[in-house]
Amino acid sequence: MILSKLVLLKYQFVISSLDPVEVYMLGIEINRQSEVSLKRQIYHKLRDYILDGRIAAGEPLPSTRELAKDLAVSRNTICEAYDMLLAEGFVLSSQGAPTRVAEGLSIPKESSEEFLQKESQSYDNIKADFRTGQPDLRYFPRYMWNRILYKAMDEMPLYQFGYSGPDGLTQLREEISGWLFRSRGIKVDPCDIFITVGATYGLHLISGMLYEEGKEILMEDPCHMGMLRALRNKGYPVCPVPVDEHGMIIEHLDGKAAWAIYVTPSHQFPLGGILPAGRRAGLIRFARENGIYIIEDDYDSEFRYCGEPIAPLYSMDPQRVIYVGTFSKVLFPALRIGYVLLPRQLHKKWRYLRTHTDVQNPPFEQAALAEFLRSRKIDRHVLKMKRLYGERRKALLLALAEQFGNTWHSWGDATGLHIAVEFPGMQFGYEFLHKCKTNGIILKSVEYHSICKGKHLDKLLLGYGHMEIDEINKGISVLNKFITSI
Amino acid sequence: MILSKLVLLKYQFVISSLDPVEVYMLGIEINRQSEVSLKRQIYHKLRDYILDGRIAAGEPLPSTRELAKDLAVSRNTICEAYDMLLAEGFVLSSQGAPTRVAEGLSIPKESSEEFLQKESQSYDNIKADFRTGQPDLRYFPRYMWNRILYKAMDEMPLYQFGYSGPDGLTQLREEISGWLFRSRGIKVDPCDIFITVGATYGLHLISGMLYEEGKEILMEDPCHMGMLRALRNKGYPVCPVPVDEHGMIIEHLDGKAAWAIYVTPSHQFPLGGILPAGRRAGLIRFARENGIYIIEDDYDSEFRYCGEPIAPLYSMDPQRVIYVGTFSKVLFPALRIGYVLLPRQLHKKWRYLRTHTDVQNPPFEQAALAEFLRSRKIDRHVLKMKRLYGERRKALLLALAEQFGNTWHSWGDATGLHIAVEFPGMQFGYEFLHKCKTNGIILKSVEYHSICKGKHLDKLLLGYGHMEIDEINKGISVLNKFITSI
Repeated sequence: MILSKLVLLKYQFVISSLDPVEVYMLGIEINRQSEVSLKRQIYHKLRDYILDGRIAAGEPLPSTRELAKDLAVSRNTICEAYDMLLAEGFVLSSQGAPTRVAEGLSIPKESSEEFLQKESQSYDNIKADFRTGQPDLRYFPRYMWNRILYKAMDEMPLYQFGYSGPDGLTQLREEISGWLFRSRGIKVDPCDIFITVGATYGLHLISGMLYEEGKEILMEDPCHMGMLRALRNKGYPVCPVPVDEHGMIIEHLDGKAAWAIYVTPSHQFPLGGILPAGRRAGLIRFARENGIYIIEDDYDSEFRYCGEPIAPLYSMDPQRVIYVGTFSKVLFPALRIGYVLLPRQLHKKWRYLRTHTDVQNPPFEQAALAEFLRSRKIDRHVLKMKRLYGERRKALLLALAEQFGNTWHSWGDATGLHIAVEFPGMQFGYEFLHKCKTNGIILKSVEYHSICKGKHLDKLLLGYGHMEIDEINKGISVLNKFITSI
Repeated sequence: MILSKLVLLKYQFVISSLDPVEVYMLGIEINRQSEVSLKRQIYHKLRDYILDGRIAAGEPLPSTRELAKDLAVSRNTICEAYDMLLAEGFVLSSQGAPTRVAEGLSIPKESSEEFLQKESQSYDNIKADFRTGQPDLRYFPRYMWNRILYKAMDEMPLYQFGYSGPDGLTQLREEISGWLFRSRGIKVDPCDIFITVGATYGLHLISGMLYEEGKEILMEDPCHMGMLRALRNKGYPVCPVPVDEHGMIIEHLDGKAAWAIYVTPSHQFPLGGILPAGRRAGLIRFARENGIYIIEDDYDSEFRYCGEPIAPLYSMDPQRVIYVGTFSKVLFPALRIGYVLLPRQLHKKWRYLRTHTDVQNPPFEQAALAEFLRSRKIDRHVLKMKRLYGERRKALLLALAEQFGNTWHSWGDATGLHIAVEFPGMQFGYEFLHKCKTNGIILKSVEYHSICKGKHLDKLLLGYGHMEIDEINKGISVLNKFITSI
C-alpha cells in the first residue's frame, strides 16, 4: 500500500497575470514510500509550477529552511532539490540574494490531442484462420533451442557484448553458407553473406542502396502487400509487371526505366509459379543491359513437397542478383534473423548503411542459430515440418474437393505454406473479405495482394501451415457454408 | 576426408557456335561423401553446362540409362535430376522424344568484379584507447543476465514465437515506465513507449516519419557523426545550429524552415553542456510556433556524477518532444534494445512504418530486460557503474593535471562516459587524428564531430568508461608524449 501525505506549502506568491491581491496556496504532495527520492519529488513539483507560470519569472523560491520545515524534510533535501533546479537553469542564484525563478520559462499546457483508440485486433470469434506465411510454432523444438541459446550466451566472448560490426557473426555466415549448399546446392562465400533481422528489413536496406530518382522498381503483380508497402512508404514508385502461372511475364519489362527488379522466382507470392529457366535468363539479360540488380526474395522454398527446392536465381549470376533469405518460416518469425547474399561491389555500401540504420543484430540468437545449423538440427526440423506441411496441403486439397466439388482449381507449385485457389465466376473483392472477417473467417484474396485491381478477383489464398488437419477440414466447411450463404 | 571421383561423361555433343566437328568430353565430378545429394550434384552440373552454352539450345540430354551407367548411379537418380531441370524450365520434354534443352538460356559469365579488400580494422598495436560511448562490459553481470534470459525464454508464451506486433512487449513497456519514474522522475504511460533496436534505429524511423521535402532538420553542431550520417544517408538536408558550453544556442533557430530539431539536452554530445531551462522553453516555443517536433536523444545521462540525472525535455511537453532512450550504455550495446516516447498523434504512423521496415524486436531479450528492470537489478547495476565511472573520471582529470599542468580545461557537466578537453592554442585536425592512429592512440576530436569545420579545433574527446584507472594513467602519459613529440 502506498501512503501519501498532502502537505500544504504555506509560502505565498502572486501570479503576475492575475489580480495581485489573489493569493494561492501551493500544494506539494510528497510520498515517503515512493521509490522516487524526496528531493526529486520536490524538484519536480516546483519545476511544474515554474513551467505553468504558477511561480512567475523573477519570483524568489521559499527559503530552504522554511520549505524544509513545512514539508517536514531535512533542509539538505530542499537544498538538493534547489541545486537540481539551478543545474537545469530553472532558477538563478547569486550570493546573499534569494534563489529566483529565471526569465522566459512559462509555457502553458497545449490542449492535448484526443487519445487515439488502439486498433481493435480482437480475434475472439475466429471460426477459420487461413492466414498465409504462418509456420506451426507448436512443433518447433523450443527446449532444445533454449539450451543451445543458453550455451551460446555462456560461451559468448566478452567483446561481442559491445559493438561488433554490421556484417553478422562469422560462424553464422559460415554455417549459412553450408546450409545453402546442403539445401539448395549453391556455393556461396561466407563473406558474401550479410545477416539481417529478416526479409522485410533486407528489402528496406537494399532498396535504400539502389534507389534512383526518376526510375521505378519493377514488381510482380500480384505481390506481397507488405513488401509493396515497404517500398511505397519510402516514396519509391513501383511499376507492376503482370504474373501468370509461371511467374513474372518478362515481355512486359521492355522499355521500362527501372532501378531494380523484385521477384519471387522459387515460389511466386501469391500465385505459386516457378519462374522457368528461359524467363530467368531473360531477367538477367534485362538486368545486365540496364545495369541494374535483381532482388530475389526466397521466403519459403525450403518446403517443396514434390521435389527438391528450386535453385535460386542468384546461382545464375551472383553479381547481378541480390538474394534475400529468412529463417522466419523455417524456424520461427520472432527469431528475427534473415540474410542477404550481396554482390561484391555492394558490400561497402551495405556496411555503411547498416551501421547508420540499426547498427547490427544482437549476437546471441546468431550464435545459437549457427549451432542449430552446424549440428544439422535444422535439417531434421525442416524434414519434419515438410512432411507435416505436405500432409496438411493434401488434406486442404481433399477438403476443397469434398466441399466444393470441381468448382475450383489450385494454382502454382506444391511449395510453401499456402495455396492460391481459383473459383471461376466468383468475385472475392474487399466487401467479401470484410464479410469474412465479421463472420470469423480470416483470409486474404489474390485481389488484396494485387497492384492493378480487378484481374484476380476469383482467387483466394488459403494458408494451411499453422493448421492441424481437423482445423483445415472444419475451416473449409465453414468457408463453404459462408460462400454459399452470400 | 572427402573422396571425390572424376567421372567422364562419354556422351558427346556439339557446341553450335564452334566448328561442328569439334567434340568435347563433358566431365561431371560427383562426390559420394558430400551432403549434397547425387541428383542435385548432377542437376547442378548439367544446369551450368546449359547456362554457359556448353549444351546448346535444342540439344537432347543423354538418355537417363546411358548417363546412369556412365556415372555409376541409379537411373532413378538421373530421372530425378532431369525432373528438377524440367520443373525449372531448363529442358523440355515431350512423350517419346528425348529431353531437350530449352531456348534462350545461354548467358555467358560476366567478368567478375575485383574482390573488395576487407577494410583492415587491425587494432594490434593499441597504446591508448579513448573511444567514446564504450561502457565497461567486464562489469556487466552476464551470468545473472543469462539465467534471467533463459527463464524468460522458458516461460515465453508460444504466440510470442510468431509475429507479435511492432509496439514491443507489454511487460517491458510497463517496466520502462517504472524505470523512467525511478531514474528521471517522469511519469510516462506505457502505451506511449515503443521498443526499438537502439537509438540510431529510433532516429532512423522518426526521421522517416517526420521528414518534409524542402525543409531541414536542425542539429546541434558539433554533434554525433553517426547520427548526422544516419540523416544524410537518407538524403535529408541538415542545418547546423551552433553549440556553446550550455548546448544549442537557440537564437540561431529564428527564421529556419525546419521539419524537426535534434538535441541532446541532458548531456550535449560531444561538448557536455546541460541545456538550461530558458533555452528548453525557447525550443518548445519554437517547435510549437512551427508545428514541428523536437527529437531528444538521451544517450548516457544515467551516469551523472555530481547530482541527480537531468529531467528530460520530454517532461516539459510530451506532445512536442520525441524522447529517444537506449540501454546500450547502461547495460551493453549488443543487447540492441532502446525505446522512444512518442506523442499520441504519431503512434499509428510509427506502427505502420515499423511493421514495414523491420517488423519487430525479438521478444526474448525484451522479456529478460523487463525482469532485469522489475527486480531492480538495473538500479543496482547503474549505481555500481556510476561509482566506477565516477572514479575513472576523477582519475582522468587528475592524470590530465599531472601530465599537462594547466594547459587544458574540461568542458561540460560531469556526466557520461567521456570528457571534452580544450587545449587552448592546439590544433587537432584530421592530420593529427591520423598520426594518432598510426601511433596506436585511438581518439576523436570535437572537430571530427563538427558539421561546420574549424570552430573546435582545440578540443579532444577522451572516452574513459571502458578503461581501468591504470589504463587511463598510461593512456594520458602516452598522449602527452605523443603531443609533445609533434
